[in-house]
Amino acid sequence: MKVVVIGGGAAGMSAASRVRRLRPDWEVEVYEETGYVSHAPCGLPYFIEGLVKDKGLLSVYTPEYFIKKRKIMVNTYSKVIDVDHRGRKLKVLTKKGEKEVEYDKLIIATGAKPFVPDPEWLEVDKVFTLRHISDGERIREAITKDQEIVIVGAGYVGIEMAEALGRLGKKVTILEALPQVMPALDPEVANDVEDFMKKRGIRIRKGEKVKAVKNVDGKVVLETEKNEYKADSAIIAMGVRPDVDLALKAGAKLGETGGIKVNEHMWAGVEGLYAAGDNIEVLNLVTGKPSFIPLAPPANKEGYVAGDNAAGGRAVFPGVVGSAITKFYSLEIGMVGINEKLAKGLGLKVKSSYIKHPTRAHYYPGGKWMKVKLVVEESRRILGGQIIGLEGVWGRVAALAVAVQNRMKVDDLFYVDLPYAPPYSPVWDALIVAARVTK
Amino acid sequence: MKVVVIGGGAAGMSAASRVRRLRPDWEVEVYEETGYVSHAPCGLPYFIEGLVKDKGLLSVYTPEYFIKKRKIMVNTYSKVIDVDHRGRKLKVLTKKGEKEVEYDKLIIATGAKPFVPDPEWLEVDKVFTLRHISDGERIREAITKDQEIVIVGAGYVGIEMAEALGRLGKKVTILEALPQVMPALDPEVANDVEDFMKKRGIRIRKGEKVKAVKNVDGKVVLETEKNEYKADSAIIAMGVRPDVDLALKAGAKLGETGGIKVNEHMWAGVEGLYAAGDNIEVLNLVTGKPSFIPLAPPANKEGYVAGDNAAGGRAVFPGVVGSAITKFYSLEIGMVGINEKLAKGLGLKVKSSYIKHPTRAHYYPGGKWMKVKLVVEESRRILGGQIIGLEGVWGRVAALAVAVQNRMKVDDLFYVDLPYAPPYSPVWDALIVAARVTK
Repeated sequence: MKVVVIGGGAAGMSAASRVRRLRPDWEVEVYEETGYVSHAPCGLPYFIEGLVKDKGLLSVYTPEYFIKKRKIMVNTYSKVIDVDHRGRKLKVLTKKGEKEVEYDKLIIATGAKPFVPDPEWLEVDKVFTLRHISDGERIREAITKDQEIVIVGAGYVGIEMAEALGRLGKKVTILEALPQVMPALDPEVANDVEDFMKKRGIRIRKGEKVKAVKNVDGKVVLETEKNEYKADSAIIAMGVRPDVDLALKAGAKLGETGGIKVNEHMWAGVEGLYAAGDNIEVLNLVTGKPSFIPLAPPANKEGYVAGDNAAGGRAVFPGVVGSAITKFYSLEIGMVGINEKLAKGLGLKVKSSYIKHPTRAHYYPGGKWMKVKLVVEESRRILGGQIIGLEGVWGRVAALAVAVQNRMKVDDLFYVDLPYAPPYSPVWDALIVAARVTK
Repeated sequence: MKVVVIGGGAAGMSAASRVRRLRPDWEVEVYEETGYVSHAPCGLPYFIEGLVKDKGLLSVYTPEYFIKKRKIMVNTYSKVIDVDHRGRKLKVLTKKGEKEVEYDKLIIATGAKPFVPDPEWLEVDKVFTLRHISDGERIREAITKDQEIVIVGAGYVGIEMAEALGRLGKKVTILEALPQVMPALDPEVANDVEDFMKKRGIRIRKGEKVKAVKNVDGKVVLETEKNEYKADSAIIAMGVRPDVDLALKAGAKLGETGGIKVNEHMWAGVEGLYAAGDNIEVLNLVTGKPSFIPLAPPANKEGYVAGDNAAGGRAVFPGVVGSAITKFYSLEIGMVGINEKLAKGLGLKVKSSYIKHPTRAHYYPGGKWMKVKLVVEESRRILGGQIIGLEGVWGRVAALAVAVQNRMKVDDLFYVDLPYAPPYSPVWDALIVAARVTK
C-alpha cells in the first residue's frame, strides 16, 4: 500500500508521520514544491528582523531526517501539477522534468496562499507577500537599504511585520481597508492595540483600501480611494486563501468558506482522498459552523488525523475554537472563540465586558497590566475572549480556550480554581474578575 | 440585621464585602485580631527577602478603606475570645478590655495556624513560624546577623523561605521528614526540584524528622532521630491546621480532614452560622471527597459565597481542584488535581507520563525547558498534573485546571485548541505532547 502526501508543511508531515507510525510496512511519499519540509511560516517575521539568524532553523526537521529516521520518502522541489485520482496517479514536475507517480491513498496538504486582489501587483518590483522561507529570504535581502515600507493589511502578519521592520529602523506605514487594526478583535480592543502601535512609531491609515500598486521612479506607489502612498517596498499581508486546485481536480468539494470540505476524519468525500491543513475548512466549535482558520496547531492535528485515518485508524478531529496569539513589541495579543461583532452578526444576544487588571499581586515587583474582554451568550455560555497585556496573556488565553472548548458558562468560569502565587497572578486573576463582571 | 465576621483575612473581607454589596442597609462588622485586614500571607517570604519593602503593601486594602468606602465596620486588634451562638453574641478582647457584641448572623473566617508538633518549640528563642505580617516583621529583624538557618519542612513555605534566605546570603538547611521535598509532588518531579535547589546551595536532609528543638549556647539546636543540627535560627514550616475553636463553640462540626464542615453555601449546619477560608474543608472535585486546601483564591471565593448566602443569596461554591504554583529562584513549580501517589492510594488505576519539552518554538531565541507530568485514570479522565520549568508554567497549570474542573479526558486534551506563537510556545505545546504520550 502506498500513501502519497502533497505538501510537506505542518499538516503534510504530521500526516506522513502518522501513517508511518501506524503502518511500518507501507510506502509513504511526500511531494513538496520548495526545498523545505515541516517549515514554520510563523517564524518568518523574526527571520526578516534578524532575531532568527539561520533560515534552516525555520524548519523543524530536514528532509533527510524524515527520509532516514522515519523512512518517509520526501521529495523536495517536486511540484505536483496534475492529479488523476480515479487512476490513482499524479503528475509531478521536478528539476529533471515531469514524472508520474502512482498511489493508493492521497492526502492533500497544499496549505494556503497569500491573498492578493490583483495578481499584477506581484509583478511590481519590490512588492512582496510572505508565506514561504524563500519569501523571507527575498524580503530580507531586498529591503536592506530601504527606508520606507508600506504594509497592506493590519492582521497578524501585518503587525508582526510592522514590529520586524520597525526594529530594523524602517519607517512603516500600514494601510488597512477596515476602520480598525486587527480585524479579529472588537473595536475597543483593536483601539488599544492601535494606540500601542502608534507609540512605537507605526503610521496607521485605516479605511484605506488599496486600488492599485505600481512602480513610479524606482519607488512603489500604492493608490487608495483617498490617497497615494510612496515607499521603497511594500508587503501585501491581506490574509490567505486555501490552495484547493489539486483537491478539486481529485474530486473534492469546497465548503461555504472556500476551503476543502472534509469530515471529522479529514476524509474529502472520495474514496482514498484526505485533506488537512490550511486548505480545508473545519468545524468551529463555538458557532457550530464551518470556518477557515489557517493556523499551525490545528493544521498539525488535522494532519495527524488525516494520516491516522488514511492508515486505517479512526481518529476524530473535533474542531477548533479559534485560539490565537501574537505580539507587537512587548504587547501580547490573544484571542479565542468569536468576538462580539461576529456573535451579533450571527444574531446572538450577547453580554460583554472589558476590564483592566494587574498581572501579579499588587505588592510583587515588576507587575504589568492586562485587559480582558469576555463575550458571553444569553445562555451564559462563553463565546470567546480577547486578551491583551504586557505579560501572561498566553496562559489566560489557554485557560479560556479550554473553557470555551468545554462550553463552560461564565458563572462556572468565575469558580475555576486557577493557580496563584504573587509573581504570576493576583489572588483574583483577571480571568476570574472578567467572569464576575460579565455574569 | 447585623452580620458579624470573625477574621479580616481574604475570606473574611470577601464575605463582608459581599454582604455589604447585597444588603446596603444591613450592619456589617469585622473583628480582626491583628492590625491588618485583607492581608496576604503569600507575600511574606518576599517581604523577608526584602523584595517587598513595605509591610503595608501586604494588605490589599486598609481598615480605613473598608470603613469609609465600603461602610464595613472593621475592628482591628479585636480578638474574639468566646461565642454564644444561641444567644447570638460574642466576647471580644480589645486594647481597652473585653466587650460583648451582638449579631444576627455570624461568618467565621478564622483561617489556619501553623502546625507545630510541640508548642514548646515556639518558646525556644529564635524559632519562628510564618503566618501573619507580624511574623514576617519579627523574622526579618531577628535574622539580620544570622549566618545559618534551618527550615523544618520542604513544602511551599519551606522552599519559598529557602529562596528568600538564600538571596539574603544565609546558609540554609532544610529538614524534611518525608523521603522527598515538596510532598504535593510525585517523587520524580520532586527530585528535579531538589536537584535545582541543591544547585542553589540549599542543604537538603530528607527523612529527618525533628524530635526536639532547644537553645544551646545561644544557638538553636534541632534534634532528629539521626542527627543534630545547629543554627542561628529556625523556621518551622510544617504546614497549617484549621483554626476551629470558635466554630466548635458556635456549634459547627468538623469534617474528616479536621476542617469545619460546611455545605456548598458555606453554611455551617446551624442557623445563621457560616464559615469560609482556611478553616473549612471543601469538596475536592477530583476525588469527590472533602479536602483541606488552605489557599488564597478558594478562600476568597468561599468568603464571597458565605457572604452571599448570609445576605440571602444562593451562591454555590462548587469545590476545588487543588491548583497551586510557587517558585524557587527561576524554577516555576505548579500542580493541579491529585498526584499519582494519592491516586494509587485511593485505589485508582492510573497511567502517567513525565515529559520534557521546550517552552517556545525551537528557533525563537530565549526558549527554556518545561516538564509535564500528567496523571490519568483508567476511564481516561485527567486526575491531575505537575508542571515545572523555567517559564510558562502558570499558563499550562491554568489550562490544565480548567480541563480537570471540566472532567476532561486526556484524548480530548490532545485536541484542545491552545494559542500558538513562536515566542510563547512550540506548535506542539508541552501540554498537548503530554496528552499524546499519556493517551
